[in-house]
Amino acid sequence: MLSVPDIVRRLDLASGTIEGCPTTERRLSDLRGVFADSDAYESALQQQDPLIYRVSTIQEGTGQGELHCGLGVLMPGRVGSEYFMTKGHLHSWRPAAEFYIGLKGRGIMLLETDVGNDSVWCNLLPESLVHVPGNTAHRTVNIGDEPLVYIGIYPSDAGHDYSTLTARNFRLVVVAGSHGPKVIRRTDFPAHRLP
Amino acid sequence: MLSVPDIVRRLDLASGTIEGCPTTERRLSDLRGVFADSDAYESALQQQDPLIYRVSTIQEGTGQGELHCGLGVLMPGRVGSEYFMTKGHLHSWRPAAEFYIGLKGRGIMLLETDVGNDSVWCNLLPESLVHVPGNTAHRTVNIGDEPLVYIGIYPSDAGHDYSTLTARNFRLVVVAGSHGPKVIRRTDFPAHRLP
Repeated sequence: MLSVPDIVRRLDLASGTIEGCPTTERRLSDLRGVFADSDAYESALQQQDPLIYRVSTIQEGTGQGELHCGLGVLMPGRVGSEYFMTKGHLHSWRPAAEFYIGLKGRGIMLLETDVGNDSVWCNLLPESLVHVPGNTAHRTVNIGDEPLVYIGIYPSDAGHDYSTLTARNFRLVVVAGSHGPKVIRRTDFPAHRLP
Repeated sequence: MLSVPDIVRRLDLASGTIEGCPTTERRLSDLRGVFADSDAYESALQQQDPLIYRVSTIQEGTGQGELHCGLGVLMPGRVGSEYFMTKGHLHSWRPAAEFYIGLKGRGIMLLETDVGNDSVWCNLLPESLVHVPGNTAHRTVNIGDEPLVYIGIYPSDAGHDYSTLTARNFRLVVVAGSHGPKVIRRTDFPAHRLP
């Protein structure tokens, strides 16, 4: 039977949670290998282990045709010249697409084909939608001064594959430049490393 | 290959359109049989044929795992005592779920099992999510004074079945009462009909 408490959920954009739903937190210590500048990462981690992002999920539906939803909040900040970012993932079921909807803050999404032969970036802003096609790895980056808040909706069967990207990482990196954020190739990273 | 113009889209919440995407409009004349008060409907239609709602869609992905997205804007107004509403639909592929995200305005969603043996209503408000499970008919109603704007995301294979609901209509009706909007059973409608 249909149950209203399970059907409608309030989003708490301040905390980045969905009422009554499970929440996962990732701290800096969970993100080893994510940042290009591993020296800056280890140095930052010696100082403190801040919350980097939190995802609250609605995962009640199961099976073909059903959908899951996540509310993400990614904190502002940097490790060296690199803005705080999510681990990024592929879907375990590769054909599974995802829609992202920007709610607050200024972000960038990095998208990369599953085989790593094509990479693009795009803005993730309030009142905009990002369509992540199937077979596409995706990572979110906060380039603003406030928490970046967004929703992601994906097939319930999608699953999360983090290991493929942990092994090779994304080809693009978002760094603070003298004229604001810029997206560079990982292979070009050392030349842009801040002192 | 990944193409940024196809990946990120700006939402125009004022017009209820998504940049570069097809838009469907429904006028009062498209909604014969939707309102319980058929006399009020025919009378209103003799006066004018206003726009009731507009849906702009992203439908690029196809096949299992892919998703489509619609931005809906439902105008404020009434036909007799009944608030403007969408036709409502089931998905042709019955297991297909949908997530609705309220962006602007005050709405109500009517949900009903495909076989019509259970009906519920819930609010559709900014900063809230509605999960429409598979096998569930859904209709949106604008109970406010401004356009109701929302996003719906659903499997690309969902399809739209309007005919099942055209034949039987939803069991619940949302009417303007003396103390504001109220949801009644269709079978109770005449007692609540405004003069």
